[in-house]
Parts: sequence; C-alpha cells; structure tokens
Amino acid sequence: MALRARALYDFTAENPGEISVRENELLTLYSEEVVEGWLEGTNASGETGLFPASYVEILNSHLDANISQNNNGTSGDGYYGNHSTSSQSHPMEVPKTSTPTHAASCAAQVHQRLSYQTSQGSDDDWDDDWDDSSTVADMPAVSQGKDGQSGYSLNTSPRSHQQKGSATVGRNLNRFSTFVKSGGEAFLLGEAAGFVKDGDKIFVVMGDCGPEWQENPYPFACTVDDPTKQTKFKGMKSYMSYKLTPSHTQSQVQRRYKHFDWLYARLVEKFPVISVPHLPEKQATGRFEEDFISKRRKGLIWWMNHMTTHPVLSRCDVFQHFLTCSSNDEKEWKQGKRKAEKDDMVGANFFLTISPPAVPLDLQEVESKVEVFKTFTKKMDENIIQVNVTINEFARKQITGFKKEYQRVGQSFRLLSQAFELDQQPYSVPLNQAIAFTGEAYEAIGDYFAEQPRQDIDPISDLLAIYQGHLTNFPDIIHVQKGALTKVKECQHGVVDGGVSERCNIISCATLAEIQHFHRTRVRDFKAQMQHYLQQQISFFQRITGKLEEALHMYDQA
Amino acid sequence: MALRARALYDFTAENPGEISVRENELLTLYSEEVVEGWLEGTNASGETGLFPASYVEILNSHLDANISQNNNGTSGDGYYGNHSTSSQSHPMEVPKTSTPTHAASCAAQVHQRLSYQTSQGSDDDWDDDWDDSSTVADMPAVSQGKDGQSGYSLNTSPRSHQQKGSATVGRNLNRFSTFVKSGGEAFLLGEAAGFVKDGDKIFVVMGDCGPEWQENPYPFACTVDDPTKQTKFKGMKSYMSYKLTPSHTQSQVQRRYKHFDWLYARLVEKFPVISVPHLPEKQATGRFEEDFISKRRKGLIWWMNHMTTHPVLSRCDVFQHFLTCSSNDEKEWKQGKRKAEKDDMVGANFFLTISPPAVPLDLQEVESKVEVFKTFTKKMDENIIQVNVTINEFARKQITGFKKEYQRVGQSFRLLSQAFELDQQPYSVPLNQAIAFTGEAYEAIGDYFAEQPRQDIDPISDLLAIYQGHLTNFPDIIHVQKGALTKVKECQHGVVDGGVSERCNIISCATLAEIQHFHRTRVRDFKAQMQHYLQQQISFFQRITGKLEEALHMYDQA
Repeated sequence: MALRARALYDFTAENPGEISVRENELLTLYSEEVVEGWLEGTNASGETGLFPASYVEILNSHLDANISQNNNGTSGDGYYGNHSTSSQSHPMEVPKTSTPTHAASCAAQVHQRLSYQTSQGSDDDWDDDWDDSSTVADMPAVSQGKDGQSGYSLNTSPRSHQQKGSATVGRNLNRFSTFVKSGGEAFLLGEAAGFVKDGDKIFVVMGDCGPEWQENPYPFACTVDDPTKQTKFKGMKSYMSYKLTPSHTQSQVQRRYKHFDWLYARLVEKFPVISVPHLPEKQATGRFEEDFISKRRKGLIWWMNHMTTHPVLSRCDVFQHFLTCSSNDEKEWKQGKRKAEKDDMVGANFFLTISPPAVPLDLQEVESKVEVFKTFTKKMDENIIQVNVTINEFARKQITGFKKEYQRVGQSFRLLSQAFELDQQPYSVPLNQAIAFTGEAYEAIGDYFAEQPRQDIDPISDLLAIYQGHLTNFPDIIHVQKGALTKVKECQHGVVDGGVSERCNIISCATLAEIQHFHRTRVRDFKAQMQHYLQQQISFFQRITGKLEEALHMYDQA
Repeated sequence: MALRARALYDFTAENPGEISVRENELLTLYSEEVVEGWLEGTNASGETGLFPASYVEILNSHLDANISQNNNGTSGDGYYGNHSTSSQSHPMEVPKTSTPTHAASCAAQVHQRLSYQTSQGSDDDWDDDWDDSSTVADMPAVSQGKDGQSGYSLNTSPRSHQQKGSATVGRNLNRFSTFVKSGGEAFLLGEAAGFVKDGDKIFVVMGDCGPEWQENPYPFACTVDDPTKQTKFKGMKSYMSYKLTPSHTQSQVQRRYKHFDWLYARLVEKFPVISVPHLPEKQATGRFEEDFISKRRKGLIWWMNHMTTHPVLSRCDVFQHFLTCSSNDEKEWKQGKRKAEKDDMVGANFFLTISPPAVPLDLQEVESKVEVFKTFTKKMDENIIQVNVTINEFARKQITGFKKEYQRVGQSFRLLSQAFELDQQPYSVPLNQAIAFTGEAYEAIGDYFAEQPRQDIDPISDLLAIYQGHLTNFPDIIHVQKGALTKVKECQHGVVDGGVSERCNIISCATLAEIQHFHRTRVRDFKAQMQHYLQQQISFFQRITGKLEEALHMYDQA
C-alpha cells in the first residue's frame, strides 16, 4: 500500500526541489521518513519534490512513534512528551541544494539528532561510555568542532569554510522548518497546552532598552576545575571528570563531558528562542592530551559562565539538577534525568511559561529591531571569523617568526662576544660578558614572544569561539520570531485573531529579551577580555623592557 | 732595446705565476710598469712570471719618474718624495690567481691608485669636480662600498662576497708585497734616512697591557654638520659640502668629500702600521638623496671620531691642515697641500719618527701577541659580517613583517568595532570606541616597529662598517711586522745585525701600540653603541607599553 498524506494547509514552493501543495490535496509519499521536517512525495499535479511534514497529515496508521513525534506539530495532539530536536541546531536545508561537504555535515547532524533521541529513551544507555566513541557524529555542535584544536595554522578559524557557510544569517531563513519545528507556529496557532506552575513562570520585563529577561534574583557562579582522568571496567575505559562547584550550594559535584552533552540536548529542545551556549568540541582522539584538556576546560568555563549568567537558563530545573545532584547518588540522578526527559514545558509549551510586560510591543518596531540585530549578527559573524584568523596567524608568527628573529639577534650578539673573548685583556672582559648577556637576553625575549599568545591571544580566541556558537543559534531564533510575525500578518488579512497577536507578542518579547541579553553579555565579555588582552600585552612588553634593562645594566661595569 | 733588470736579492717564488730570482741574476722585463710592487719578466732560466720590483734594479735609464718612485725602495736613493701608494689598501694580488670578479676589483684599485698619484702631482687637478665622476673607480676604499646603501635586503652585508673574500686575514699574507711596499723592509735594512724634527717625534710608551701610543696631550673632537649642496659653474656642477668644527680651534671649515679623499690618500701613504679609518663609500649617482647624505654624514662622523681619537693620526700635520685651514684662503690651502704631498716622513721614514720605550720588547712575546691578534681579527671579521647580516635582516623584518602583523591585528580590532557599531545602544558605544582605539593603537605600534631600526640597528650597522674597514687594514699591518721579524731571524742566522733588531723593535712597538689602540677604541665604541642600542630598544618597548596603556584606559568608561 502506497504511503499517502493529506495537506492540512497551503504551501507554496520557494526553492528548487520543493513542491507546492493545496489544503486537502492528496499526496503520495516516497517514504515515511521525515528529514528535518521535510517529506518527499508527489502532489496531485504530478510534481515530485519536498514539502513540510507539518503541513500534511499522513494517512497510513502504521507509522512508528518516532515519526509521529516529528509530525505531531500539525496533528493537533499536542507537544506532550515531544522529544523532537532543537530549533537551535542548524535547520536542515534541503540536500539537493547542498554541496557534497554540506550534505555530509547535514548527515552528521541527523546522526546526532538520532543519537539524542535514542539516548533519551533509556537510562541504560547512560552508562555507555560516550566519551569513547570514535566517531565525530556525537558532537553536540558540529558547527563548533573540528578546527579549534588545530593550533596556529592559517586555517585556524573555529569554523571551517563549510561551517561558515551554514552559519550566516541569510542562509537559514527557510520560512518553515525552524518556525514549525521549534513549536513557534503551534504556539502561535494556540495549539500548545500545558499547566504552568508558578515556579516555572518566566518574566519578561521592560528595561531601558526594551524587553529584558527578569534578572535571576539569586545569581550564582560555578567553577570548573581539576579535569582528572577516571577509569572504569578495570582500566578498560577511561574518561575525564570535571569538578564543578556552584557558588549557591558550595557543594562539589563531578561531571563528565557526556553529562554536559546530555544537558545541552535537554536545553536545546526546551528553549526555542534562547541561545544555548555551544559546548566545546568533543574530540574522539587525543582527548587526554594536556593541551586538549586545558582547551576543553577553558571552553567549559566559558560555557558555564554563559549558563549561570543567563536569567532563564541558569534557573531551569534540568540545569539545577545537573549542578546540584550528588555525584554519588545514582538514584537521585536517574530520577532527575527521567523528569527532565519527560518535561512538558519544552518547545511550543515553553512559550506558555513566558509572562510578557503589561503593554504589548509595537510589532513594526519589533520587526525593525530584529532586522537591525540580524544585520548585526551577520556582520559580527563575518568579522570575528576574520579576527580569529588574524590573531591566530599573529600567534603563529610570534611562536615561529618573531621568536626566531629575536633569537637570531641574540645569537649574533653571542657571536660578537665570542669573537671579543679572544681578547682577554682585563679591560675587555666586562664588555665581553655584557655582550654575551645581551645575547642571552634576546634569546629569552624570543622565548617570551613564543609563550605570549597563550596568555593573551588564546583567551580572545576562546571568547570568539563561544560567540561563534551563539551567532550560529540566532538565525533560528530570528526565524521563529519572523515566522510568528508573518503568521500574524496572514491572520490580520483574514481578520481572524483569537489570541494570535498576543502570542506573537510573547514570542517577540522573548526574542527581544534574548537579543538584549546577548548584547549585555557581549559588552561585558568583550570589555573584560580586551582589558585582559591589553593588560597581558602590557606586562609582556614590560617584561621585555625589564630584561633589556638588566642587559643594559651589565655595561655599567664595562 | 729590451728592458733589463738585475736582481738585488734572492727571491723564492711562493705562488703560481711568480718566478724565483737569484741575487745578481739578469732579467728581461716585459714592461717597465710596476703593478702593486710587482714586475713581469723572464729570468735567466727562461721562466716567465712575476717578481717583486723592489728586489731588482732596472738597468735602463729612460724610466719615467713615476715608475722610479715605485722602485726606489731598493735603489738606495732614499724615500724622499716617495709617493708610492699605501700599504694599507689591499695588496695587489697577482691577477692570474684571481677570479674574474676579484680581478675586476683589483683593476678598480689600480685605477684608484693611479688617480691618487695623478692628483698629487698637480694643483690644477684640484679644481676638477671629482664628485662628478660617474665611475666607482674613485672609491677610496673598495672594500667598504657598494652594499651599505642597499637598505634591508638579505644581502645587506656591507661587503659583498667578493669583498669578504679579499678582507679575510689569511688572504693578504703575501710575504713580500706589503712589507716591501710599506717601506718596512727598507727601514729594517737601514735604508731609510731623513731628518726628524722634535715636533714630529712619535712616542710609544709602556702601558699596563704593553706598548701604547703616547696619548695626545691636547685631545680634541670635531663635529661634522650640515651637509649642504653647493653649485659652481653657474649650476653646471654641484657637490656636497660639510661643515667641520674642531673643538680645539672652534673655527668652522667647509670641506668636500674630495678633500677627505685626498687626506685619506696622504694618511695611507704616510703611516705604514697605522689603521687609517676608511672613508664612507663614494657614490656616483644619487649622492644628493637624503638617505645617502645622512648615511655618508654618519660615516664621516665615525671617521672623524676615529681620526681625532687616534694619538698619532689626530696630531699629524696634514690632518691639522685639513681641519684648520680656512675654507676661503685658497693660497694657504695650496701651500699646505703641496707641503703634505712633499712630506719626507712617509713610509719607511715614518718609522724614523718613532721613539720606542727604553726596554726593547721580547720578540718571542711580540710574535705570540701578534698571532693572537691575527686570530682575533679573523674571528671578529667573520662574526661582524654575520652580525651585520642578521641585524639588517631583523631590521627588514621589523619594517615589513612585524609592521604588517601589528597592523593586521589593529585592523582586525577595527573590524570588531565596526561590527559592534551596528549596535548603537548607549551601553555599547564606549566599548565600540575603546575597541576602535585599540585598533588604532596596534596600527601605531606597527609603525613604531617600522621606524625603530633607524634608531637602533642603523647605528650598530654604521659601527660595524667602520670596524670592517679597520679589519681590512690589519692584515697588512701584521704583515709588515711579520716581515720584519722574519728578516731579523734571517739576519740572526747570518750573525749580521747593524741595528736590525733595534729597528725591528720599533716596528713591533708601533704595531703593538696600534693593536692596543684598536682594542681600546673597540671596547669604547662597542660599549657605547650597545648601550645606545639597548637604551633605544627600552624606550621603544616603553613607547609600545604607553600606547597600550592608553588603549587600556579607554575601557574604564566601557
């Protein structure tokens, strides 16, 4: 029996490979497999291509549960238990328009999503040593990975060309996939439903510069320390464990990368318009090497900083469970884990928890603000890639070229003193020694140059990495808000509302609050890091000056 | 009638192309032209080749005055009016053993020598505008020229490969030419004669470290200022004029390069075992360009410094005439010029003016000291070439690579601020400005790097240039001393002395005094220049630090 589907809404093809469908039109499906919200099939006019899965109702009843999850946004039976993956990963573009490398990247993402879905279902999977996986498919954020570790090469951009392409704002504005997948549309259309406990309520307040998330009244921080190698199965398996100490409990917990990974997946599915910070890359090989451990720890510190300072993320149950559940209490952990995976208030329902300010926003103004932000993120994304390439190239030059140049100067002064030492008359000796010392000083300065990037450029590079992650998230966030706005406009044309404007206002408030939070964090972080960079550079040049003064002093006796 | 000569002494050929002659052997000459002390001819055995002109007596009487000058060291008629060229230029090696480039270099030297000889003879030549010569043949010191001006290229060694080859100590140790030409041999053999006025006496005293020139009791310095372009013949000819102000007269005189050039030639012919500092290169084209003028002036300052601080050179008549004769008194100038050119106390006779310490030196010890010094100069010569290459390459890197790197970092910070400026919220603006300022600061630092070599590396390079000149002189000086020592040993075997030991002691004292003077000057100069270099480097890095502190301060408001 051929797979059939019925269109629930009109859909107009916008890209090559897509086909248009009319409400109630019957479609023949090639497969029941939904890839990133798309189905492939033939419409009543005989055209074959892709259309949004959420716009159709599959007429066969033998679909497995997994598929129905991806489809339930349109079937009206709510988002309860919806474990569809996040709106914050790259929306899957239609493969036909993709380059081969991009297709490979998409495939990795699909793999990733499937693995998240699998891991949710069973507590038994928990004990599998994910860290030992030798594929990169488990990487929680493909867009972050691969390059960060390559040291100071010309291609040290934290995102490869392929990833850069998929991270620009423009590219992700597929009108449908994200808006629908995130639950934004379902919420807007009034299809989300759930009981919001008072404690779960999230307030957007009106600040000086527009809507803002209400500050966390109990702010806290969390340190990430002492990555230590742990073994199990009599040393057959080993993994790294990090010591976390949240300031509000002062109780230390041990967490592995896979715990972070699991938490990340929960956050991403729960919060449609919040930019969940990307985890530092997962690296399959060499992950016990000192450099990698140190780099990952720094990445986790940044990640933790962005988590604890986010008014919404910092307070959510799953994060609190992650931070506070005792590392030794297996039972409590599993309970919290199960609870998080069964959370109702994810996706579309998340919007139910948002309490907007009393006065609704002017949608025109929202649109313009979002447009400005979109331009901003596009420019920032482009420019920080350039900055990262430049400073890493600068680091490489200091480690190689600058070091070599100063050492050569040092060696040539030594040569001079070696020649002069052939004259051992008493009045010649102090000069010979002073020149030899000058040679050593320049060799030391060469070493200073080589060591310096670790102190000043690496932290900037780490900063840029966490922001590159955020910039990858925002196209989807903007997309959800734009989708909502478009829907409102459609409804207003048809003069039917029924709370759509109100719900669009909620989405807009959340989006602008998240944008505002992004800017505040950005100003805070870049200020602090630029200060740190300059302070490091100053003490570096002062150290050089000190060494040269020492050398100069040697000539007093000459 | 064939040209004939009779050998006065035995000469044993040591190099290819030379022929041996026996005392009283008759030789047939190819030409009466003496090239660097050598004649070409056929001996009684029928061998054809070169032999020292001073070992033979030309039997024909129609030789012109010029040739007889070159030959009179052996003819016994004294050194009066001897205008033979100096022992301090490169001794002319036999062309047959030379590489083509070396041969070209020799040819240039011959040309140079001839031009000196010509210029001595006639006051009329004086007004010819030597500066306008378009050949490099007039260069007073070939070994110094050509490269110094080429800026910061990989080949910035002040001496080209060819010149390097000709400057190494070993190469100049032809046993005969220099010893003979300098008059050292004639003096040693008691053939020099002349009346030494009390005022002309030069004392070698015993210092802590051996023989030393008696210090100039009236030390003075001389500034070299304001190189200005002068014209004559209604602007048809132009030349640079330098303002000299000796501290002991405080009267300013104007001198042109050709005056320095003439003085240099006088000094070189007068002083056989004194290292006359080389003049900065003569450059035929582009000599009114600012860089060249500045470079030549710095070279002349170094030259003047080495002249005025040399106990013997600083006091000699011709130098005093050069420093003190009024620029406007043409008549006085010509008188002094003629007097200098007719100076009796040149070459062999110079040694007559030297009063050694009371106790003669131990010749064994002298030999060993000279040997140590020979090793020293060889090493110093090799190593300062290397130092010069390295520091000039370092300068080039700073001017190109370092500058570029810092400017790129600056530009990337600007890029960052440009992206951030798209967010014009009030709390964002001060950060944007601070980052833009940081960008400017790094661009400025790039410029600092590019400007720095002129402050610190160029002076070191100038220092090395003057010492490379001295190191070119010493092989000949050592050669004269060794020639004397060898002669003494020969005489001692034959048990004939007649004052030879005494005269050898004078040559040794003068040589060791000159070596001692070289070391003292070297320690003084390198100490001062290394201090200057380090002080410049320190203030350079402090300037960078200052700029960065300024940038850091900008973040206080961010």
